[in-house]
Amino acid sequence: MALLTSHDVLAAADRIHHLIAPTPLLSSPVVDERFGRQVLVKAENMQLTGSFKVRGAMNAVAQLAPAARGRGVIGASSGNHAQALALAARRFGAPATVVIPDDAPRAKVEGVQALGARIVTYDRIMGRRDEIVHRIAREQGLSIVPSADSHPVIAGAGTAAWEMLRERPDLSAILVAVGGGGLAAGTCLAASHRSPAVRVFGVEPEAADDTRRSMTTGRRVRIPPPVTIADGLGHTRPGDLTFEINQGHLADVFTVPEELIAEAMAFLWRHYRAAAEPSGAVAFAGLLKAADRLPPGPVGVILSGGNVDWPRYRTLLDSVADREEHTHAAALLH
Amino acid sequence: MALLTSHDVLAAADRIHHLIAPTPLLSSPVVDERFGRQVLVKAENMQLTGSFKVRGAMNAVAQLAPAARGRGVIGASSGNHAQALALAARRFGAPATVVIPDDAPRAKVEGVQALGARIVTYDRIMGRRDEIVHRIAREQGLSIVPSADSHPVIAGAGTAAWEMLRERPDLSAILVAVGGGGLAAGTCLAASHRSPAVRVFGVEPEAADDTRRSMTTGRRVRIPPPVTIADGLGHTRPGDLTFEINQGHLADVFTVPEELIAEAMAFLWRHYRAAAEPSGAVAFAGLLKAADRLPPGPVGVILSGGNVDWPRYRTLLDSVADREEHTHAAALLH
Repeated sequence: MALLTSHDVLAAADRIHHLIAPTPLLSSPVVDERFGRQVLVKAENMQLTGSFKVRGAMNAVAQLAPAARGRGVIGASSGNHAQALALAARRFGAPATVVIPDDAPRAKVEGVQALGARIVTYDRIMGRRDEIVHRIAREQGLSIVPSADSHPVIAGAGTAAWEMLRERPDLSAILVAVGGGGLAAGTCLAASHRSPAVRVFGVEPEAADDTRRSMTTGRRVRIPPPVTIADGLGHTRPGDLTFEINQGHLADVFTVPEELIAEAMAFLWRHYRAAAEPSGAVAFAGLLKAADRLPPGPVGVILSGGNVDWPRYRTLLDSVADREEHTHAAALLH
Repeated sequence: MALLTSHDVLAAADRIHHLIAPTPLLSSPVVDERFGRQVLVKAENMQLTGSFKVRGAMNAVAQLAPAARGRGVIGASSGNHAQALALAARRFGAPATVVIPDDAPRAKVEGVQALGARIVTYDRIMGRRDEIVHRIAREQGLSIVPSADSHPVIAGAGTAAWEMLRERPDLSAILVAVGGGGLAAGTCLAASHRSPAVRVFGVEPEAADDTRRSMTTGRRVRIPPPVTIADGLGHTRPGDLTFEINQGHLADVFTVPEELIAEAMAFLWRHYRAAAEPSGAVAFAGLLKAADRLPPGPVGVILSGGNVDWPRYRTLLDSVADREEHTHAAALLH
């Protein structure tokens, strides 16, 4: 398969810009002062369906032949790609089937239902997700749209960073969460268009550090199904295509503990008035942990999604409010 | 004093655009479908200092003579104008004094402190706020920047609607909360620039309906100090300048009960991933109550602020989550 480049990201941006929402770059003078640098937050929680995933799904479905669209599309997802695929399919008149874990957040499941997609559930720990997807696709002639490890999905995901860099070409670094790695890989491609390229840093939950381990060993490592509040990042192994790109382009991968993810959610609520889901706050948690390891200059942080149920959101922010006097990052909250 | 017109709003926009944040117009396909029209939310909770107030404060301080700036500025506020004035003063190198009620939300007080303004507190029910302001201003030679009832403050506030209409000239209606009436008056002026003018609807808490009562009787009515969760809208009487404009331009004034304000906060969190303070959600509560009384077509809603303490925010959203199966507006939450 031909190598994916920044030109594919540009082509994706051209293809989908009228199909997605223009998301803002949020800033806060208080945060900038405390970090001694400008921090720009790309608010993909305000993207259609509440996450960046609609970028890749739109770019993929837009390129299907009409006959394939007519037969329908299928994808597996912890929830956000499912909603994105449902919307993209509806936009192009294609029937959609999504395969999601039986413990997916209610906000995500309801989003999928509202968009009219057919739902197939599986057990996240024991179920063989990919086998289910391939079997249904084969039986029903559906086109598979992966959540991350696919050229059109990576290129589409890269349009978020592309937009950031168009608005702020002076960014010295971008922080991005790594799950399946599609957003990170797309961000790397978008960044590589500039010379010298802006440096891209991946961030993972400590409990889901498959990409950091794989970067260290130089090959794709598989970990046990991780337990993390960042339900969108619970991958067990980097993607094939995404890892090749991320291995070559990521400046580093930081890992963050669960508490810091909750603190990042609270920080985003307090200073940017933005609701982030746990996975969506992971990149910002990387800033709280490792700001001193970034090159000087303005930094961009991708807030990748905002689909979280209220009881969980409340519990996580409460946990930080109780502890906020006692931790490093929480000192910044004041 | 010369009549204020839409040209003053345009001049204010020119004057302050580089001093404020570009705030997004949020949209949600799910909400649009449920209301059968496009709903555009102007996210002034993401404005600098977390509310639209910085627009008026910047426009006022920018027009002070250098000598007056050197002596300093003073303003009274429930909290948001205080933060805005503190930032505007700092931007122009002017010392700032703010007079705020002793029960102002901690988030607002901390915002003022972080910006280096001097704070004077008073008792909101018993204190004579305006007397305090005028006495200090006289003694110390300070320029008073009112929170609403002043030409530069009204013109500055109107720039939010001006930006909305520049981006979406097809809006048929705008919903705006009414407290002191500066945002509503500025919005009326911005809207009057178009022909036929977009219709502007004010929204007040039921408990703080001084403008609705005044519109009905045709003169400015004073009410007892209201008790409402919308702490930014607890005014007892419409402003002199603002009422003249609002009386002539507002298409109608809706009132909303306290529970609907909390439901609007939950709605904004769920569908737009935006944190609104109670006052900031009042305009959206007006949409929940009276969407069927608006002219057909796209409607703009000004989310005017996001400064609220977490415990209060959590409590209000919890109160809705418990009741959401049972109320009219909550049906829309699903």
